[in-house]
Order: sequence, then structure tokens, then C-alpha cells
Amino acid sequence: MNRVCVGIAGFGTVGRATAEIISAHADLIAQRSGVRLEVTAVCRRSAVKAEDIPAGARVFSDWNQLVASGDVDVTVETMGGTDEARQLVMASLKKGKPVVTANKNLVATHGDELFALAASQNLPIGFEASVAGGIPILRVIHESTAGDRLRAVHGILNGTSNYILTQMESRGIEFELALAEAQKAGYAEADPTFDIDGFDARDKLCILARMAFGGRLKVSMIPTYGIRHVRAIDVHSANRLDCTIRLVGSAENTESGIEISVRPWMVSRRSMLAKVEGVNNAIFLVGDKIGMQMFYGRGAGGDATGAAVVSDLIEIARDVAAGQISAKKVSGFLDSHDLAICENPRPVSWYLRLTVKDQRGIVARVAEAIARHEINIDSLEQEPHLPKDRVSFVITVEAVSEPTIRAAVDAINSFEFMVEPVLLLRIE
Amino acid sequence: MNRVCVGIAGFGTVGRATAEIISAHADLIAQRSGVRLEVTAVCRRSAVKAEDIPAGARVFSDWNQLVASGDVDVTVETMGGTDEARQLVMASLKKGKPVVTANKNLVATHGDELFALAASQNLPIGFEASVAGGIPILRVIHESTAGDRLRAVHGILNGTSNYILTQMESRGIEFELALAEAQKAGYAEADPTFDIDGFDARDKLCILARMAFGGRLKVSMIPTYGIRHVRAIDVHSANRLDCTIRLVGSAENTESGIEISVRPWMVSRRSMLAKVEGVNNAIFLVGDKIGMQMFYGRGAGGDATGAAVVSDLIEIARDVAAGQISAKKVSGFLDSHDLAICENPRPVSWYLRLTVKDQRGIVARVAEAIARHEINIDSLEQEPHLPKDRVSFVITVEAVSEPTIRAAVDAINSFEFMVEPVLLLRIE
Repeated sequence: MNRVCVGIAGFGTVGRATAEIISAHADLIAQRSGVRLEVTAVCRRSAVKAEDIPAGARVFSDWNQLVASGDVDVTVETMGGTDEARQLVMASLKKGKPVVTANKNLVATHGDELFALAASQNLPIGFEASVAGGIPILRVIHESTAGDRLRAVHGILNGTSNYILTQMESRGIEFELALAEAQKAGYAEADPTFDIDGFDARDKLCILARMAFGGRLKVSMIPTYGIRHVRAIDVHSANRLDCTIRLVGSAENTESGIEISVRPWMVSRRSMLAKVEGVNNAIFLVGDKIGMQMFYGRGAGGDATGAAVVSDLIEIARDVAAGQISAKKVSGFLDSHDLAICENPRPVSWYLRLTVKDQRGIVARVAEAIARHEINIDSLEQEPHLPKDRVSFVITVEAVSEPTIRAAVDAINSFEFMVEPVLLLRIE
Repeated sequence: MNRVCVGIAGFGTVGRATAEIISAHADLIAQRSGVRLEVTAVCRRSAVKAEDIPAGARVFSDWNQLVASGDVDVTVETMGGTDEARQLVMASLKKGKPVVTANKNLVATHGDELFALAASQNLPIGFEASVAGGIPILRVIHESTAGDRLRAVHGILNGTSNYILTQMESRGIEFELALAEAQKAGYAEADPTFDIDGFDARDKLCILARMAFGGRLKVSMIPTYGIRHVRAIDVHSANRLDCTIRLVGSAENTESGIEISVRPWMVSRRSMLAKVEGVNNAIFLVGDKIGMQMFYGRGAGGDATGAAVVSDLIEIARDVAAGQISAKKVSGFLDSHDLAICENPRPVSWYLRLTVKDQRGIVARVAEAIARHEINIDSLEQEPHLPKDRVSFVITVEAVSEPTIRAAVDAINSFEFMVEPVLLLRIE
């Protein structure tokens, strides 16, 4: 039996789960794939609990030692962050050792450099775990794009935001309380910015769009809005329209270019998106021939993400054992052309919620600002029984392009009676 | 550029779609996978329209000639049926030519023999297209089972039945009308038995269960019930319980063995199963580490199935071109042990609908028969305003095992006042 030795750099939730799966399923893996995975080294800055250390593994505090170690064949990067993780991956590749990473931030930010180095070293980088945890969406896209033309990829890519939104909906609670509870439950970080402001979803969307459409794309090119400003009143308004709110990352290949964004959508309760609750993820692919497909499951958590790391490890280990290790062609990351982002996306309907200090003539001025941008109002409703210094209006408008609605929103935001900026949701 | 020549035996909907995709996407495929697919021969018993014949391809009426043809490297089997298809696949393998098939019936019935021959010839058989059309579920299971232990696989595996059930529900129509319309729309065959009696779903479930749990399984071991006896009144009753009816193939690895069946379920409207409408398929996997995953998309149709055939062709063509062609290890088909089917599945709740000639004392006798089998009635309702010679009762009972409820149903079916057998639905 071929033995392939694994070094795990970064021994937090995902790193430990990876070690645990390798240990628990070693026989199963050996029997099914003909290789025996063994964790021979782990590395962590902070102290590692003795009971967590895999039997026979050495513990390093410096990842350089782990990468240099003679009994590490493949490096697993589960440290997170981009600076040290980047150095670690490059060091491993330079030493001729393949890498498996769960780090979406790293792949989205430094993917070009890392895959170029991997290609020059003729080594693979496994990164299935970087998007949507245990859902094997990157493999599916890789297969789908080989023989079909993908038109769109979109989905719910951040479990934390989805958990908060579904809690707000099912219990009628405010955003702040839902966030505090998510933090308590371990579903949100102490600093929740990365999740709730859409950056985590943006990194994943960047990877998905690159693979689906085959071209370079900087994360900074993706318009990104989170859920920080969604309030109970918005969830309530959505309910009235038989809708619910979801944070959606969406990329669509249109005739005028790639339409791409991360933003909250108001979606029909009867849609598949609405059925995705709690910390789950769901990704939709649309292809010329395959039609619409959806892939749903746990998007995060040690076990699901660790399982994805292990699936990459098995694939690489098989090749290591067979002496056939080579770089894997990854659509979108070795392309030299940039994806053309579309500046004027197609018209869609929008939901606007204004919070104002009540005074005479507000409705007229808002309606005038909207009309001036040649936008038709579909519905307008002022919430009754609210304190005079915080009155909410909800407006829905007919389909217009994003630049048009943004211009109107900017005009409205400049009014002196606005208490906070307009909340803008795409209606799907 | 490496050129790989494809012969397509069986030039109906799927065969033609496969040829069309290869022709339309030849450049895309060449660019992304480094091989140029070319259809050099097609074979069909009945006449092939001139405009359907791929440019430069020869047309045979005898598949033996196609398999023997020097310019066919890979054989695609899209003939359907089991006898000739089996001979064709064996002939192709014996000539050293890999096979791609879309034929679930063939794989479920003759899989053991065909994969054994493929192994001895060291050639792959691609069969992704045989289950759930364009959804790459077999690849996903193959990957998932490498590093995780799957506990359950279930889903909506037959698009025709699902189309009929959702039409009955959305329009309140009877089964016969929904079936006739499905036939008119091309979603059901003139002889609909294979779809509506559950055999198509059974073949797919057999393949899924073998791959998920790794063992041999005869299709005849799978208890199979279709939707032929579901009536508008059942859909109506389901509605009242905030449920809907779906034909579900289900296999679960329990401590006492594999629980497996194809049968109509009554599922909550809020469940993911209920959201699967029309001709779509959805497959749920449950694994120790990956948790619950769902894969959704078009389960049939030329384009989706053809896309799956082409994805297998690309994988094989890459290996042919690289001179690395070899048999692929397929879990469940080269195992020598049988899956242990569990004879006494766990208790679940059930829905029974009785159609009777009205007479005094019926309720008492039915209730007595149920009580005698130590089953508790949860609800009992007689539909009002029905003709006296066809009165319907709807009964739901608390959780009991299938043998127990079957015994009670057998007893009820023997009553002289029964107009037709009890319709039994599992409540989920």
C-alpha cells in the first residue's frame, strides 16, 4: 500500500477536522483509493492540545519547518489570511510538494501567482474546500465547462449571512440581535465584517466566475453590498410581497459582458433560493445544454470543509502514489485575458427603504427625484405608527438598470430629511 | 491536436443531441481539454434524416459494422433496451474500445457482467448519463465515497412521474388526464409503464445505492410502487395536510441493513422535495462528514443527457489521447458481496386511501382491522358528497414498520366492500 504523508499548516477548526477525517477514515480511503493517508506533521502558532495531535505526528510552530520536513509529501494550508498563507503555498510548491487549501481569500487574491507557480513546477493545487465547504462545486464546474457553455452562476455563498437573515425572518428579530446570537452560536466571528458585508461571498463568487467563464478577474471589480443595513421592517415588507431576503452572489455572461455583484435580493418565497435556510449554501449553474442545476449543502464548518480537503488529498495522493503528479489545468486562473465586466447591467426591479425625519412634502420630493431619473414607481408605502424622527417608507420601482437606480438613490440620500442611507434590494 | 473518433449506436433523441453537442462545441472542447471529438459513424435501425447526420459521418444500419469500423475509437450506446445494448457494449469492449452509455436499464441489469469485462479488458465504461441526465451525481458519489461514509441517498429520479404529480396538484386534474397530456407533450411514452410504475426510478436507485454503499444489488430486490393509483383526492388530502405527493427512490444504510424502496411519499410543502417541480430530478446525499447535500436539475431530455454523455466522452478521450486508457474502479459493481437489504424497515407514518361501496359498519371494520395489527389511527376522514358506490376514506396512522402496515392493508383489501386496493403513501 502506498503511504502518502500529509502536513497540515494551520490547526484550527478545519485543520483539526481534516486530521480527524484522515484518521477516522484511513482504512476506508485505503480500501477505496489504494493509498494510505497519514498526517505526519501539524503546525500552529498557538498551543495545540495534546489530544488533538494525530498519532505519530510532529508539531511545529514554524510552517517553514513543516514544509521542509522530509516526511511531508503534501501540504494542507488551513491557516487563513493571505500573507503567510501565500508564502507557505509558494514555499511548498518550490519544494516540489503539492498543496491543498481551504482558503478562498488566498485563491481569490493571489490565485494567478500561485497557479502560475504550480504550472511551472508541474504540481497541482487542490482548492475544492475554498468554495461552499463540502459541496463539490468546483469539480462540477470543471466538468460542466469542458463540454458545455455556462451562462450563469449564482447562489447563496455565505452561511453566516443566511443564518442571520433566516433568523430575522422566522423570529421577527432585528439584525443586531440576530448577529449577536449568531456570534454566540459560533456562526459569526467577533469581527463579522468579512461575512456580513459580503466580502466572503465576493471571494467565492470571484473563484466561481473565473472558473465558469474562463478569464482573470480581480475581486475589487465585483460590486459588493452586504446585509448590515437590512432591518426587521425590510423582512416584514418582503413578507407582505410573499418574498424573503437573501444575500446572493451572481455572475451572468451576457452579450454586453459579465454582469456580476454580491447584494441582497428580494426573492419569491416559492423560489429555490428562498428554501435555502440557516447556514446552508446553494449554487445554481445555468448552461446551454445542462439547463439549470442547483447544488445545495453545508457551506462551512469543520467537517464539511475538512471532507472537501480530504477529497482533494485523495485525488492528489493517487497521482503521487502512481508517480503521475502534474499541474491540473484550472479554467480562469491560467488565462491571460480579463473577464469583461459589464458596466450597464440589464434592468431589474428594485426595493428602496427610506428612513426619514417626518416633515411635510417628503413624499413629493422623493417621488420627484425618482421621476427625474425616468423611473416608474410601482408601489409606495409609509409605515404607520412610527416615531416622527424615524419614519420608514418602502418604495418598489419598475425595472431599470443599476446605474439609473443608483443615481436616483444618490439624489435621495442627499436630502436633509434622510436619517440613514437608502437600503436598496434587487427584486428577483 | 489529438483527434478521437466517436461512433454513436442508437440515433434517437439522446444520440442526436450528443452528436449535435459534439459538433456545436468541438472548438470549445478542443481548447479546454486538448482533444478534438469527431463523430465518424452513427447507427440506427430506422431511417436517419440526412440533415441529422454529422458532417463526414458514415451511417450503418447494423451496429456490428459500427463497432468494427477502424475509425471508431469510442462507442456511444444510446439504443436503449437491454439485449442488443448488452451485446453492443460487450462487442465494443472486446474490440478494445471504451464505451459511454446513457442506459440505466442496461447498467442496473447487466452492470456486473459489463464492468467485469471492462476490468478484464482494462477499459472504462462511462455511464454518468444513465442517472439523472445532466446532473453529475455519479461523479459526486464517486468523490464523496472516497473519503466519507454515505448514510443515505434518496430523491426524485423520474421526471415523467414528477411532471404528472405536479400537474395533478397545480391544476386539480385526475391522473388519467395528466398522463394523457404528458404523453401529448412528449414527457411520457405511449406505453408509460416504465415511468409511472416506478421501474425507471428503481433502475436509477439501484445504480445509486450500489455506488453509495459499495455492493451488489439486484433490481428485483427493490420494493417498487408507482403513481398509477394516485388520484386527485389524494393530492387534495395532501394539500389539506400542507403536503404534496412525490415519487421517491430511497436507500438508507441502517444498523440492520439497507432500507430501500421506490414509492410515493407525502412530503411537507416546506421540504426541498416539494420544491422539485415538473420534469426535474433531485438527489439528496447524506454523509457522516458532508452532512446533507442536494443536487437538482433536468433529469432527462436530449440536451441534458447528451451533455452527460459528452462529459464522459471528454474524460475518456483525454486518456485515449494520452495513451493512458484504463478501467475505472466503480464502487459497487466490482464488489463480490451483496448489499444486505433490511427486511424490517423502521417505523414511519402512513396515509391510506380506501375506495369502498358505501354500507353500514365499514368504518368499524376498517378500524378494527387496523387496531388488530396494533396500529394507532391518527386521523380518519370520509369524503362527503361522493356517489354511494365509490366512497373514499382517508386514514393516517402513527409510525409503524412496513410489514405491519402491509399486513393491515392486506386485511383491508380482502373486505368485500373494497372497490379497489388501498392506496398507501409513506408520510415524511
